[in-house]
Amino acid sequence: MENIAVPPLNVPRIVIIGGGFGGIRLAKEFKNKEVQIVLLDKNNYHTFQPLLYQVATAGIEPDSISFPLRKLFKHQRNITFRNARVRKVIPEEQIVETNIGSLSYDHLIIATGSRTNFFGMNVIEDQSMPLKTIRQALDLRHLMLQNFEKALITADLKKRESMMSFIIVGGGPTGVELAGALGELKRHVLPQDYPELDVRRMQIHLVEAGPRLLSALSEKSSQKALDYLKRLDVNVWLDTMVKHHDGHKVDATVNPSGQKLEIMGSNLIWSAGVKGNHIAGLKEDVVQNNGRIKVDSFNQVESYDNIYAIGDVAQMTTEDYPFGHPMVAPVAIQQAKLLAKNIWAKVKGKNLKTFTYKDKGAMATIGKNKAVVEVGKFKSQGAFAWFIWMFVHIMSLVGYRNKAIVFVNWLWNYVNYDRGIRLIIRPFDLQLRNDRRKKEEEERIVF
Amino acid sequence: MENIAVPPLNVPRIVIIGGGFGGIRLAKEFKNKEVQIVLLDKNNYHTFQPLLYQVATAGIEPDSISFPLRKLFKHQRNITFRNARVRKVIPEEQIVETNIGSLSYDHLIIATGSRTNFFGMNVIEDQSMPLKTIRQALDLRHLMLQNFEKALITADLKKRESMMSFIIVGGGPTGVELAGALGELKRHVLPQDYPELDVRRMQIHLVEAGPRLLSALSEKSSQKALDYLKRLDVNVWLDTMVKHHDGHKVDATVNPSGQKLEIMGSNLIWSAGVKGNHIAGLKEDVVQNNGRIKVDSFNQVESYDNIYAIGDVAQMTTEDYPFGHPMVAPVAIQQAKLLAKNIWAKVKGKNLKTFTYKDKGAMATIGKNKAVVEVGKFKSQGAFAWFIWMFVHIMSLVGYRNKAIVFVNWLWNYVNYDRGIRLIIRPFDLQLRNDRRKKEEEERIVF
Repeated sequence: MENIAVPPLNVPRIVIIGGGFGGIRLAKEFKNKEVQIVLLDKNNYHTFQPLLYQVATAGIEPDSISFPLRKLFKHQRNITFRNARVRKVIPEEQIVETNIGSLSYDHLIIATGSRTNFFGMNVIEDQSMPLKTIRQALDLRHLMLQNFEKALITADLKKRESMMSFIIVGGGPTGVELAGALGELKRHVLPQDYPELDVRRMQIHLVEAGPRLLSALSEKSSQKALDYLKRLDVNVWLDTMVKHHDGHKVDATVNPSGQKLEIMGSNLIWSAGVKGNHIAGLKEDVVQNNGRIKVDSFNQVESYDNIYAIGDVAQMTTEDYPFGHPMVAPVAIQQAKLLAKNIWAKVKGKNLKTFTYKDKGAMATIGKNKAVVEVGKFKSQGAFAWFIWMFVHIMSLVGYRNKAIVFVNWLWNYVNYDRGIRLIIRPFDLQLRNDRRKKEEEERIVF
Repeated sequence: MENIAVPPLNVPRIVIIGGGFGGIRLAKEFKNKEVQIVLLDKNNYHTFQPLLYQVATAGIEPDSISFPLRKLFKHQRNITFRNARVRKVIPEEQIVETNIGSLSYDHLIIATGSRTNFFGMNVIEDQSMPLKTIRQALDLRHLMLQNFEKALITADLKKRESMMSFIIVGGGPTGVELAGALGELKRHVLPQDYPELDVRRMQIHLVEAGPRLLSALSEKSSQKALDYLKRLDVNVWLDTMVKHHDGHKVDATVNPSGQKLEIMGSNLIWSAGVKGNHIAGLKEDVVQNNGRIKVDSFNQVESYDNIYAIGDVAQMTTEDYPFGHPMVAPVAIQQAKLLAKNIWAKVKGKNLKTFTYKDKGAMATIGKNKAVVEVGKFKSQGAFAWFIWMFVHIMSLVGYRNKAIVFVNWLWNYVNYDRGIRLIIRPFDLQLRNDRRKKEEEERIVF
């Protein structure tokens, strides 16, 4: 393979794999420093994952929550971006292998995030729609609309109902927010689009294996989220484990009774877990079962001097977080900030600082004027929480254009009870999706 | 095949194939009339084709120039929409066959528009990017960005230059506007995105077989357009016929000398002609060589009582237009308006009116503050024309949300000399595209 064309400079080369929250923050921290940053990502854009569910439910377009990485760094001249898929790292040679060639590094930062965890259930993986990337969000939007079109021309009422029904597995923020958005589509949009269908027959199921939704938040917030969802006609199944999906219905088991359950629904969305998106080439014992890479309190990967991992893919166990930090953006951002300082301290021969996470709280929205927010001791539910949620999300988007476009769309949707982007641009085909996924896996493209 | 589930009513059924400018106007004209409209389209959205080139050049997102057909007609209860591909019409049985079943009609309107005409040059068709649909526009955006990423890691300077270079064939509005937009990308955006590339080596060629650009406009406007393009470093080749493309360069012939010419450029965009998108099942002699369907002055298809064609796909020859009307939106809209009246008159047993086209003029923009506009005797060039162009295009978009979003994007791009949507969401693959196209052709899906 030809060598990746990145001109070597006479300064330390820092290679960052992944342009997520952690990767871009880290790269930015090195602004005006005498280093050479090489940022690698399989996409040419950064994705704001918390709003993917809105792309999936026709509320906003991909461009609103994506930002071209080259544009992001156009004023930072010590960065070289390469649109590449990393195949593996060879620590002995200090080299990263990608689909466009190999690349040497002085410091390597793995910021490859996480991906959907199907816990080995291949049937579920084949049948379900994950929601971690822009493509997956578009696929879900297309599938949903296609199935409604199909339902129209399906005479069998049971099949028709199944095509119109959604089973969301996983009661974290993604599952809850998606269920809420579907609830609003059911109430305000779909009856107008499909007057021929009895949209009351559209069922939205949210299935959670644990005893409550939003387990990262307080019991009160969980309860509120549950109330809000019920008002939107979402069927919430707690303590329920999904085992199988045959294309039309899910087989599940209720804990602790072991009672068997069938839930009808052709559209299966899997947001029940993620795993670290580790890369090949590291010693096996640094990669945990959950795919995360063991790091010390400086985010250094165990037994490697100049390899670091941050964010979702890194597992740093501390007293407060014996199972690692939550896989959320603030952790990645805070680790990136500190790691930049530490690498610079290393270059300059100074002392390093250990990482302490400052919890930024958590929030979720469940339809119009309804959200739950917790920041430290501050807890809020309802309309005020919803405004906080909106404000925080708009401010977190990269770029003023994106902020403005999302604002226009949200204002429009708020006033008109609408989700305007009900477009099937590339019809979704489950078989093609699965073929492509398997091909990528065969090529051992991990990230 | 199961019958398409459209409940029959006790009123005349009007089937419209195609949700373009003509189709949607026609459907709207029947609002509050006692008829049953069935609108068929292979997409679930209307496309505003004049701005496709802006999607291709990362200026706006697909949702800005697409509008869900169901949303468009949500307040018109006599319309049934079906997302279907029409395979053929069987006039003897008054039936339309589609991929989701067959459907009877009392009146049939073919409003299937036009598609790219490659004039039988298969190699060109395989190698080039047409620009008639949202998918094609996205494909072009992705290909352009992919080729710039590829150019970065290509050591061979000639190959690199070819990857960065564009050959646009066809000097009509699409070709001219696309060339202008690429010229602006070259000047303002790409040098910042790709500081490692010598973007001066990016060549933009606009090749026109005739003696001037924008032949629908006056000679003065043609000259102005040429001047504007030259200022944007676009190489314009007049009287030049493209014969072949090998993936890296075009073979062309200059008229009338017959001189042979080679033009380097991997990115070939074909906007050199369209043909009527006729459907199968009509008598052969009503379909012209250019794919358009012969209609009389009532838009009735020759020798069929209750079949009509409007817009690009219809060829009505009049004294003023011996070769048919121009294939532009105003013709389709005006024909739709009159045809609705005429069909209604027919139902009521009244007299029909013949069609006369009111020329709405033509316009094209060539980069910031530069456009040519001609409406009747009014002619304008430069910044004022550019404002007219913008105003007319924003006002022509369907829906307030789309207008607002396009406005925000244009304002942003104007102030920042930017095209913000430089995202490769679905990497383009020429082989896959061609395979899919051929498969569709084999299935005889014409529209």
